[in-house]
Amino acid sequence: MSGKQRVFIGDFVHCKTLDTLEILEDTAIFVDEEGVIVAIERGCDLKKAEEISIPRLGWVKEDVMVRVARKGQFFFPGFVDTHIHAPQYPNVGIFGKSTLLDWLTTYTFPMESSLKDLARARSVYTRCIKRTLSHGTTTAAYYATIHVATTNLLSDLCLANGQRAFVGRCCLDSLSPDWYIDESPAQAIKDTRATIEHIANIDPSNKLITPILTPRFAPGCSTELMTQLGALHKETNLPFQTHISENKGELDLVKELFPNSPNYTSVYDSHGLLTPKTILAHAIHLDESEVDLIIKRQSKVSHCPCSNSSITSGTCKVRWLLEKGVEVGLGTDVSGGYSPSILEAARQASLVSRHIAMSGDDKAKLSIEEVLYLATRGGANVVGLEQKIGGFEVGMEWDAQLIGLGPNYWSEDEGNPECVKALEGVEESPVDMFGWENWEERIAKWVFNGDDRNTLAVWVKGRLVHEIRK
Amino acid sequence: MSGKQRVFIGDFVHCKTLDTLEILEDTAIFVDEEGVIVAIERGCDLKKAEEISIPRLGWVKEDVMVRVARKGQFFFPGFVDTHIHAPQYPNVGIFGKSTLLDWLTTYTFPMESSLKDLARARSVYTRCIKRTLSHGTTTAAYYATIHVATTNLLSDLCLANGQRAFVGRCCLDSLSPDWYIDESPAQAIKDTRATIEHIANIDPSNKLITPILTPRFAPGCSTELMTQLGALHKETNLPFQTHISENKGELDLVKELFPNSPNYTSVYDSHGLLTPKTILAHAIHLDESEVDLIIKRQSKVSHCPCSNSSITSGTCKVRWLLEKGVEVGLGTDVSGGYSPSILEAARQASLVSRHIAMSGDDKAKLSIEEVLYLATRGGANVVGLEQKIGGFEVGMEWDAQLIGLGPNYWSEDEGNPECVKALEGVEESPVDMFGWENWEERIAKWVFNGDDRNTLAVWVKGRLVHEIRK
Repeated sequence: MSGKQRVFIGDFVHCKTLDTLEILEDTAIFVDEEGVIVAIERGCDLKKAEEISIPRLGWVKEDVMVRVARKGQFFFPGFVDTHIHAPQYPNVGIFGKSTLLDWLTTYTFPMESSLKDLARARSVYTRCIKRTLSHGTTTAAYYATIHVATTNLLSDLCLANGQRAFVGRCCLDSLSPDWYIDESPAQAIKDTRATIEHIANIDPSNKLITPILTPRFAPGCSTELMTQLGALHKETNLPFQTHISENKGELDLVKELFPNSPNYTSVYDSHGLLTPKTILAHAIHLDESEVDLIIKRQSKVSHCPCSNSSITSGTCKVRWLLEKGVEVGLGTDVSGGYSPSILEAARQASLVSRHIAMSGDDKAKLSIEEVLYLATRGGANVVGLEQKIGGFEVGMEWDAQLIGLGPNYWSEDEGNPECVKALEGVEESPVDMFGWENWEERIAKWVFNGDDRNTLAVWVKGRLVHEIRK
Repeated sequence: MSGKQRVFIGDFVHCKTLDTLEILEDTAIFVDEEGVIVAIERGCDLKKAEEISIPRLGWVKEDVMVRVARKGQFFFPGFVDTHIHAPQYPNVGIFGKSTLLDWLTTYTFPMESSLKDLARARSVYTRCIKRTLSHGTTTAAYYATIHVATTNLLSDLCLANGQRAFVGRCCLDSLSPDWYIDESPAQAIKDTRATIEHIANIDPSNKLITPILTPRFAPGCSTELMTQLGALHKETNLPFQTHISENKGELDLVKELFPNSPNYTSVYDSHGLLTPKTILAHAIHLDESEVDLIIKRQSKVSHCPCSNSSITSGTCKVRWLLEKGVEVGLGTDVSGGYSPSILEAARQASLVSRHIAMSGDDKAKLSIEEVLYLATRGGANVVGLEQKIGGFEVGMEWDAQLIGLGPNYWSEDEGNPECVKALEGVEESPVDMFGWENWEERIAKWVFNGDDRNTLAVWVKGRLVHEIRK
C-alpha cells in the first residue's frame, strides 16, 4: 500500500467550520508515503517547494511526485458518502411513483437478490465504485446484499480501486421474500462474521476497508438478530449502519412489530444498536425525545435528500438536528436516491432545506458552505474518521479531488485566436466561467452546475484513484 | 435558410399525450429542405429508405443527408424553454439565501444593467445560446434587458446559431434603480418597437425569431406602460410574457400598488395583457378565481421548479393547473433557476411535485412521461407552436435531439477486449447502462442522471445546430 511522497501546489479550498470555507491560495501540501499530510505551506510555489521545503523534510526532489494545479483549478477534500447501497446501483433513476415499502418489493429486493451472481456483482460493483470515485467520493459506507461471496467481492473491488469504504453484509431475517432473506439469526451472524474475517485478511489494519454491522432496518430484523448484532458490536467494536424513521408506513410497521418500544429510536437502543459508532440513515420523522436519545448515545445521522424527495419519504430537518447537536453527513442512498454523486446530494440538501423554509422555518435554509461541510467534514464525523479525512490539516490523510471549472471567457475573448490557443487542453466543463467571478461565486457555480467533468483527479490516502484523461 | 433534404433512421421517442410516450422503433423520418417532416415510415431501414421511400418522395438519393442512430440511441423532440433570462446567465447558481425582491436588487439588476455593453452582451448571449442548445433547447422564450442594441444582438445571435427564439426587450419603468429603468412609458414602447422592427428585418416571416412583448412584472410596470403594451398587442398580435404570483412579498407589493384590482391576475387582465398568447411564469400562489380567469383568457403557464425552490418562492401546483385545464410548459428561469437545462427542470418538476405530494396531495406526483410532455409538447403549447414543434408528426418541423445513453456493460464484458473494441467511439455518458434495461427504465435513467453529454446532436427546423464531436 505504501506509495510515493507527493506535493500538491496551487489553491486549496476546505471547510473550516459548518459555515466557513477556508481558501488557501498559492499553497503547497506535502504528503508522505503513507498518504499522510506532513506539511502545509502558504505562499509556496514549485520553486520554493523544491528548493526549501522538500529538502527540509529530508526528501529527495527526484523521488517526489508533484502536481501543480492550473490557475482556476483548486483542490478540495474528497466527498464522504455516508449511505449507499452498491447492489442497487443499476436502478438509479428507476423508482416510478413508489414509496419505501412498495419500492423495496418492486425494484430493490429483486435487484439485490440477483447480485448473488458473482459475474453480475463484479460488473455492478465495479461500475458503482468507478462512478462514485469519478464524482469525488473518496469514502463510502456501503450496504451490500445478504450474500457473503459478493459482499466480499465488494470489499475486494473497493480495495483494488482504492476507495476508502465501510462494507456491510446486509442482515435481513424478517418480513422479506423467501428468495431474499437470512435463514436464521444464527446464520446471519455467521455470514456477517465471514465478511468480517475476509476484510481482516485483505486489509488487516483497516487502512482502507472496514467491516460495518448492517441490520437493514428494524422491520427487517428479528429481536434475536438485533440482540446478537448488539453483542457482536460489543465483541468487535465495529461500527453500525441502519435506517431510521424514513417513511410513515414504515413507522406504523415498527409500532406494530415492537409494541413495547415507545418509538423507533428506542427499538434500536433497547437492542444495543444505538452507539457512538452508529450511522442512522434518513431520520426524517423523529420526535424530540428520539433526537435527545440519539444525542445521548452519540449516534450519527446520514441525510439523503435525493432519496427522501424521490420516493416521497419526507424532509429531514437538518437545521434542527444540527442545532440540537447531532452530527450529520450526506448520503446518496443509491438507488432510493437517483444519483451516485454527493455533489448532487449537496445541491438537493440545499433545495430540500429551502422547501422546509417555504413551510415557514426560514432559518432552515442551508448555505453553500454548510452543504459542503456536510459532504466532507460532516461525513467524516458520521463515519468516525474526523481525525483522518474531511479537511486539509497536518496529520490528516490526503483524500482529495482536483476541481477545474473550465475555461474563462471574457467578452473580448470570443473568436480571439490567442485566447482559443490558451484554452487548449483546458478541461471541458458544464459550468461557464466569465472570468470575473470571485471565490464565493465560483464555488456556488460549481455546487449548482458542476458535475464529474469538474472532478479532474481524485486521490485516496495519497494514491491517485481517478483521473480524467484528455 | 433553406437546407438539405434529410432522413433520420433509428428509434424515436416522443410524447403522445400528457402521460403516454410513443416509441417508434426502426423508423425513418423524412425532412424536406424547409425542415418540415414529410413522411414517417415504420419498419424502415437505410436500404428501404434509399430504395423505396426516397424515390417515392421524388428525391435524389445523392442529395439527401442521412443520419442513422446507433443501437441504443434515440431521437427525441427538442426541448422548449418557456422562460429564460439570457442576461442573467452568468449568475446561474449564484443566489445565496435571497428571495425574489432582494435577489433582484442584489444579483439581477446589476448584471442586467451591465449588459448594455455590446462586447459583454455578445459574450454572455453567445455562451447562453450555445449552452442551452447543447442541452437540447431548440426553442427558448428569452427575456433580454431594457437595452435595444443588445436585445437586437440577442436576436441576431439566436438566428446565427439556429435557435428558435422569442426575444423580448424587458419593459420596466417603475420601482427600479435609476441606473436600470425605462425613462418613460413612451420611451419603453418606442424601444420595444425598435426591437420588433429589427426582427422584422432579420427574419421577416418569423421562421426562427419572433418578438415578444415583455412587461417584466406588474410591480415594475406603470399602469400607463401596461395599457400601451396592451394596445401594442392589439396592433401587432405579438405574444406576451411576464411573471405572475411568484413570491409572497411580491403579492403584497401588487396589492399595495394596485389596490383596486381584486388580485394579481386581474391586474394584467384589466390592462389587456391576459390573452391566449400570454406566457405567465411561476403562477405559484394563484387562487381558484385567478386560475379560472387564466383559463377563460386561454393564457399559458411556465413552470420553473429550479427557480421556485432556489429562491424559495413556493411550489407551483402543476397537477391542479393541468386538471383545471391550464396549458403548462417548463422554464429554466435562468438565473432564479440555477440550471440552463430543461432536462434538469423536468427532473426538478418531478421532485417538486413529490414535495407537494408529501404535503398531503398524493396525486400531485408527476410521472416521467408527464415531465417530458411538459418539456416538449407542453412547452410548444405555451409558446403557441403546438402545430409546428414538440413531437414527430408529418407537417411538423424537425426540432429534435439525438440521445445516446452510452455503452452497455454486461457482467461478462468487463475487461473483454472484444467488448472494449465494440465500445470505441461510443459516447461518454453520466448514465451507466447494463444492457438489461427496457425502454421505460432507459428513459427514467436518462431523465434522472442524463445531461448534455447524452445530447449528441441537436437540430432546429432541419438544420444541425449542435453536435458533440468525439
